[in-house]
Amino acid sequence: MSAAEPLFRRLALVGIGLIGSSLARGVREQGLAGEIAISTRSADTLEKARNLDLGDSYSLDAAEAVRDADIVVIATPLGAYKAVAEAIAPALAEGAIVTDVGSVKSCFLTDVVPALPGHARPVAGHPVAGTEHSGPEAGFAELFHGRWAIVTPTPESDQDAVDQVTEMWRRLGSDVEFMEARHHDQVLAITSHLPHLISYTIVGTATDMEDDLKSEVIRFSASGFRDFTRIAASDPVMWRDIFVANREAILDILGRFDEDLTALKRAIRRGDGQLLEDHFTRARAIRRGVIDAKQDQPDLPPETE
Amino acid sequence: MSAAEPLFRRLALVGIGLIGSSLARGVREQGLAGEIAISTRSADTLEKARNLDLGDSYSLDAAEAVRDADIVVIATPLGAYKAVAEAIAPALAEGAIVTDVGSVKSCFLTDVVPALPGHARPVAGHPVAGTEHSGPEAGFAELFHGRWAIVTPTPESDQDAVDQVTEMWRRLGSDVEFMEARHHDQVLAITSHLPHLISYTIVGTATDMEDDLKSEVIRFSASGFRDFTRIAASDPVMWRDIFVANREAILDILGRFDEDLTALKRAIRRGDGQLLEDHFTRARAIRRGVIDAKQDQPDLPPETE
Repeated sequence: MSAAEPLFRRLALVGIGLIGSSLARGVREQGLAGEIAISTRSADTLEKARNLDLGDSYSLDAAEAVRDADIVVIATPLGAYKAVAEAIAPALAEGAIVTDVGSVKSCFLTDVVPALPGHARPVAGHPVAGTEHSGPEAGFAELFHGRWAIVTPTPESDQDAVDQVTEMWRRLGSDVEFMEARHHDQVLAITSHLPHLISYTIVGTATDMEDDLKSEVIRFSASGFRDFTRIAASDPVMWRDIFVANREAILDILGRFDEDLTALKRAIRRGDGQLLEDHFTRARAIRRGVIDAKQDQPDLPPETE
Repeated sequence: MSAAEPLFRRLALVGIGLIGSSLARGVREQGLAGEIAISTRSADTLEKARNLDLGDSYSLDAAEAVRDADIVVIATPLGAYKAVAEAIAPALAEGAIVTDVGSVKSCFLTDVVPALPGHARPVAGHPVAGTEHSGPEAGFAELFHGRWAIVTPTPESDQDAVDQVTEMWRRLGSDVEFMEARHHDQVLAITSHLPHLISYTIVGTATDMEDDLKSEVIRFSASGFRDFTRIAASDPVMWRDIFVANREAILDILGRFDEDLTALKRAIRRGDGQLLEDHFTRARAIRRGVIDAKQDQPDLPPETE
């Protein structure tokens, strides 16, 4: 496959939020598809996508958008997967690739794959990239540059379909990694889902404070709290669905986190400075690993607020 | 006081880490002191400060550094406050201002003030600024630009000393806010101490994982975890002392955080998406407040790694 020729004749996007719209922009910029068909359930969001000129056709009907498409990318919240799969199934072209961008990969296997016709070629994927902003206007083509895209094929996956999805992410600038879906969900529970849950919790704790204290918390949010508010600004519906879909792995890691927090709390109560210092010193080594792995730069949009 | 003339004849710095060295650079850049005397317990750190040309004189003996100084700034970890105060007390010039930069203000009142001679003029302060880097080489003069400096006078404070400390922070680019020490410690427990404790915990939880999983956690640390590793890279000794010194306020806010986390955990276990979505939506509003208060830009050093 040459980098110059389009990978797909018609790419259909179901869902056009931060990730979907970044994908549309990247696909167009790289000339990856002859045609981009965009579909979303909300008339308002569809109108925004049209005004942003993100695609070639726009429809509120997912089945209409996927007709004749050789690849369909589901980019909705996870809670919509089953309904989307059932809606597009009868309209899929023979051998159409069906992929996604969701943060939990096991639910692609449970909610999407069983609803598809036998001729369809499902391959789940997850670009590990994002910002705290949401909606079609928040997307940008460079979002995937230098970021991981995790593809989670199964033994039943069609190899050609896997190759094409892989090539799409590579041309969008990502490094592709293959992983088993369940393992992906465990890793992401630690790296992404738990951090978001903790951020939502701590920001929620501050939200419940008396107004005077709350306004002071906002004023003096530098040095820690502000980073949590950024993470906790992410899309509530998307995150609701992630926590429900990856419940098992999240509760497992949350259990370990709870134990560790209890131990530190106990050390603070007893004034056990040595335990605290040892713990903090060990934690510092991980940061070195993150920097060495070149994962320390945030995914900022081109112009930040 | 004109902005052109030095505020102080001789400024003595006890401790020359990130904050102390940023202060030395800023004081020199703004011409705030005729002379900067630097002291630290570690010969290695003192040598670094000398090589960086941060001051005019260097000493391992705090008493020697503060002799003839009209202002002394304590910039050590909180655990050293008592020993520093006792060491400098006999050497302080008549009416010397003694201030600090620590993150817990009540321990300036308990550990520093009682050890000083009656003629000294203590005024506690706290620049709400920092990065995850530490040591004299990590400092930069712009660290305090556009950031808050909180000054916590008591009814016994000398007004002229308060004015001079205030003026110093203003000329270093900070917005000064006055607060009661105990109240400061409550606000910072939420905005800074709890976020750091949580970050240290979550990064520690990952540190304890099997090596395979740990290396994957590092590789896929974008989208949440990476932000925690940055916070958890902060100086372990400084943070050990903060948690011990502000124990009461931290345990109080930690109790509220625990309750909230338990409620969210329960919602995940039950698959209660509505509760999660409502909580996340409310948390989002705080981010808007942080942006409106212009507190959303990180304190990055001029060249970041």
